[in-house]
Amino acid sequence: MSHPMFEKHQALLTQALNVIEERGYWSPYAENSKAYGEHALEEGRAAFEAYRDAQFYLDQPGMVKRGGAEVSPYGLPLNISYPMCQPDALIAAAGNAMPPWIKAGPDIRAGVCIEMLARLNSHSMEMAHAVMHTTGQGLLTAFQIAGPQAQGRGLEAVACAWREMRQVPEKSRWEKPRGNRPPLRVDNVYTIAPRGVALVVGCATSPTWNSYPGIFASLATGNPVIVKPHPSVILPLALSVAVARQTLKDAGFDPNLVCLLVDEPDALIAKEVAAKAAIRIIDYTGGPLFGEWLEEHARQAKVFAAKAAVNCAVIDSTSNYQDMLNNLVITLSLYSGQMCATPQAIFVSREGVQTPAGNITLEQFQLDLAQAFNVFLDNTARALEILGAIQSPAAVARIAASRELGEVLCESTALRHPLYPDARIHTPLLLKVGVADSGAYAEERFGPISFVVEAATTQECLSAAERVMREKGALSFSVHTTSAAIRQMAEDVSLRAGVSLSLNLTDGVYVNQPAGFADYHATGANAAANASLIDSAFVASRFFVLQSRRPA
Amino acid sequence: MSHPMFEKHQALLTQALNVIEERGYWSPYAENSKAYGEHALEEGRAAFEAYRDAQFYLDQPGMVKRGGAEVSPYGLPLNISYPMCQPDALIAAAGNAMPPWIKAGPDIRAGVCIEMLARLNSHSMEMAHAVMHTTGQGLLTAFQIAGPQAQGRGLEAVACAWREMRQVPEKSRWEKPRGNRPPLRVDNVYTIAPRGVALVVGCATSPTWNSYPGIFASLATGNPVIVKPHPSVILPLALSVAVARQTLKDAGFDPNLVCLLVDEPDALIAKEVAAKAAIRIIDYTGGPLFGEWLEEHARQAKVFAAKAAVNCAVIDSTSNYQDMLNNLVITLSLYSGQMCATPQAIFVSREGVQTPAGNITLEQFQLDLAQAFNVFLDNTARALEILGAIQSPAAVARIAASRELGEVLCESTALRHPLYPDARIHTPLLLKVGVADSGAYAEERFGPISFVVEAATTQECLSAAERVMREKGALSFSVHTTSAAIRQMAEDVSLRAGVSLSLNLTDGVYVNQPAGFADYHATGANAAANASLIDSAFVASRFFVLQSRRPA
Repeated sequence: MSHPMFEKHQALLTQALNVIEERGYWSPYAENSKAYGEHALEEGRAAFEAYRDAQFYLDQPGMVKRGGAEVSPYGLPLNISYPMCQPDALIAAAGNAMPPWIKAGPDIRAGVCIEMLARLNSHSMEMAHAVMHTTGQGLLTAFQIAGPQAQGRGLEAVACAWREMRQVPEKSRWEKPRGNRPPLRVDNVYTIAPRGVALVVGCATSPTWNSYPGIFASLATGNPVIVKPHPSVILPLALSVAVARQTLKDAGFDPNLVCLLVDEPDALIAKEVAAKAAIRIIDYTGGPLFGEWLEEHARQAKVFAAKAAVNCAVIDSTSNYQDMLNNLVITLSLYSGQMCATPQAIFVSREGVQTPAGNITLEQFQLDLAQAFNVFLDNTARALEILGAIQSPAAVARIAASRELGEVLCESTALRHPLYPDARIHTPLLLKVGVADSGAYAEERFGPISFVVEAATTQECLSAAERVMREKGALSFSVHTTSAAIRQMAEDVSLRAGVSLSLNLTDGVYVNQPAGFADYHATGANAAANASLIDSAFVASRFFVLQSRRPA
Repeated sequence: MSHPMFEKHQALLTQALNVIEERGYWSPYAENSKAYGEHALEEGRAAFEAYRDAQFYLDQPGMVKRGGAEVSPYGLPLNISYPMCQPDALIAAAGNAMPPWIKAGPDIRAGVCIEMLARLNSHSMEMAHAVMHTTGQGLLTAFQIAGPQAQGRGLEAVACAWREMRQVPEKSRWEKPRGNRPPLRVDNVYTIAPRGVALVVGCATSPTWNSYPGIFASLATGNPVIVKPHPSVILPLALSVAVARQTLKDAGFDPNLVCLLVDEPDALIAKEVAAKAAIRIIDYTGGPLFGEWLEEHARQAKVFAAKAAVNCAVIDSTSNYQDMLNNLVITLSLYSGQMCATPQAIFVSREGVQTPAGNITLEQFQLDLAQAFNVFLDNTARALEILGAIQSPAAVARIAASRELGEVLCESTALRHPLYPDARIHTPLLLKVGVADSGAYAEERFGPISFVVEAATTQECLSAAERVMREKGALSFSVHTTSAAIRQMAEDVSLRAGVSLSLNLTDGVYVNQPAGFADYHATGANAAANASLIDSAFVASRFFVLQSRRPA
């Protein structure tokens, strides 16, 4: 069985599989905005503006009313109304849509999924504006992360899923010799059977990048997907669902294989839906409370949950002091600490930081880091793009509430955006605490809040970081050292805490920007997330193998 | 890094990977007892006898006392005393043994595991006697299932695990172009990190075949394993652990990577151990009560549980009536219905069975099936070997208690074994019930108890079978039909109930004898088991990938 969409994208799929095997650099979708046309950014803005003050069209079953009340962190009310549908109607429609999707098999499903990604790619600029005005990311940041990088993660999920499914042959002949008698012969047919209806619960800060792996892994393995965006960040996933549905229609499948489930902040429905017997897979990114609730209560489903993290950094020594400081400043500033792998606790020994120019005292390091922040902020246009806006008012309140937790090294101040006077823009708050103040630094404080944690020695820094990451979970562990002994200790900490290690990042590689096809995001090995994006465990448990055998 | 055991077994591993990809017939360990030497069976008996009335030696930490009170279902007291060790001591020792095992990497771990299997293979005859006198299986049945077939499943688990681990490169160079500036270069190292200490809870009827997949999948992926046999069937897993420990020692690893945890019927410890925070993987085969308890309470662990099944068969029509009856008789008699995939409910329409010789009425079919049983039992020596003995007195009691559930088609009678006068040997009980009597046929009644279930039509048979398998779970679904329409319906039932389908088995292939490397045992898709032996999901979630990256 073949299909034009599989034929069209087979070469890209093959390339993706080769890259996954090597895990080198690959960007299957252009990350340079210019590649999308001279006026692409403006055309994207116009496309985005057309959604505002309008009804978002999706011909889904079970519509009860319209709703949605997104307000841009840059201050614009979006005033888009989405169809709000009965969950049971979506689940029933998803179930009905399954049989032909199962029968289509891995190749065709992969082809249709990659066609969705190709079409999403052509919407990258409109997506950039939609993500900017829901998450608060700077426009170019939003373009890269929510556009080509998210699409790349989607492709990676499709390729990993295809690889796992393709390890099962479609059929086999089993022939057992029996001496002089004719052999026993059995013909086997193997069918990839999906687990069932999947629910993807999106997050408010990275709606596409964090959701595409689950959406595409489930779809590629035959499961229909109900996408429930965060009620304050609906448009990016609504756009994604609309593209997916149109692609399914064009490919000859039931569009109800992908549905949007919208709820409102004062009437959240994720719990009710997640606990339904028909929901067999849940992909979740967001706060730890709901993540733990899912693991505890949605027992009928396979739950992939990315929750809270207290990411740690340890600074021991460096061969490039200024670049290290600059890297740290960008890391902490990128989308105002709302990247889920941003370090929150930066451990430094009171013995100071060893550099080629000699020992830098702890006090001097703190002054230098603050100064590097000031230099960064001096270039306002660049700072505004990198910082973006604060997605939720709660995170702004959290900045204020955190000031009392330590001595202020860098004050968080409100910045004014020349185009968006009401934007929630606040520079990062950097506090100084002692290693004993774990009540301050070892609780996740999502937003632009981080701590320089003083300890007696680098060994104590490593011990404290290990304790925090083991207890609270971490998505990143960043260490600067020129010492082989410290590096070995850091690698041991990484293994025991189940967190990947980034050593001595000083150039344009940031610990909170994982690269698709090379970097695993999360490991599944600590409390921050029970799964990795994207490894074989992430895809293999989304399907079963059903066998049918009979004498040949 | 290489190792003599990897070099020795690399070719076999490669062959296993090739076969898994094709899923044809392969028996990597000889299934013909003659291949083990002319006197092998007798030598095995002598080796087995040497364990009786003696202390079983294992130099494990934390020994508190000795215990074990196995009695052969053939009536012999074994009187073997095993070391009983503190669980926390075994867990601590297992944890300490881990780091070099992790560092050894996938190749060396696979080589050591396959060496264990090679040595277990050389103990196959002694294992046959040990399994016969604990589970009750006939000697040749025990030899095949617990010896070469179980070893094959172990090899399959090692090969699947190796394949999943090997999809992750050991290292990569990531090089991102940056126009005129030099590219960004990052070196990545990827480490397979095990989940943690694994607990394998063995069952009483198939101690090695059902446990080797979990033991070897966990070991190959870097996890230490604590093996807790059923308190009435200790010796087969004690022998396995002893071989594994000696192999580890000879390979230069800590033998505490594999430990035996023995408990006694009046002081069971599996619950207490399974709930410990340090236990991160549990493989369980056994009754549904404890399986559900594990899923409910051992939440810190990844639980692979095979529980109860109500396997169904539907007989519509056949091109080979007598062979079908004979196949059914052997299927139901094999190890007295104690094979976990043995059909319990055999649905037949009141419209009778279509055959080349015309329609056989339901009444005639029942008479013919009973007659086929009688012919089978007439050859006493063969019947004794195939039936084996009843493992537990509870199953004997269950036969008596089940008689009232329907009209007796074949009475269960006690048979006398010429060598073992006290053996628990009982022929299968076959009852006739109506499709409405689901209280009789739709509850698992483990042992030689099955039902011919009458329904109005084959369609009703299929519907009833689907309902039972969806609600109660099933490991096998056997259908006899010559009709393409019924076959299609049966395939749809198979898909909806998440159970594999066996069509028209009439020759020497039995629905309850899955073939390693070709047949998946269980699917994970229904209540009988939450995982399949052996697919990629079975191995992929036993390890994580930890990444370490730094500028090149």
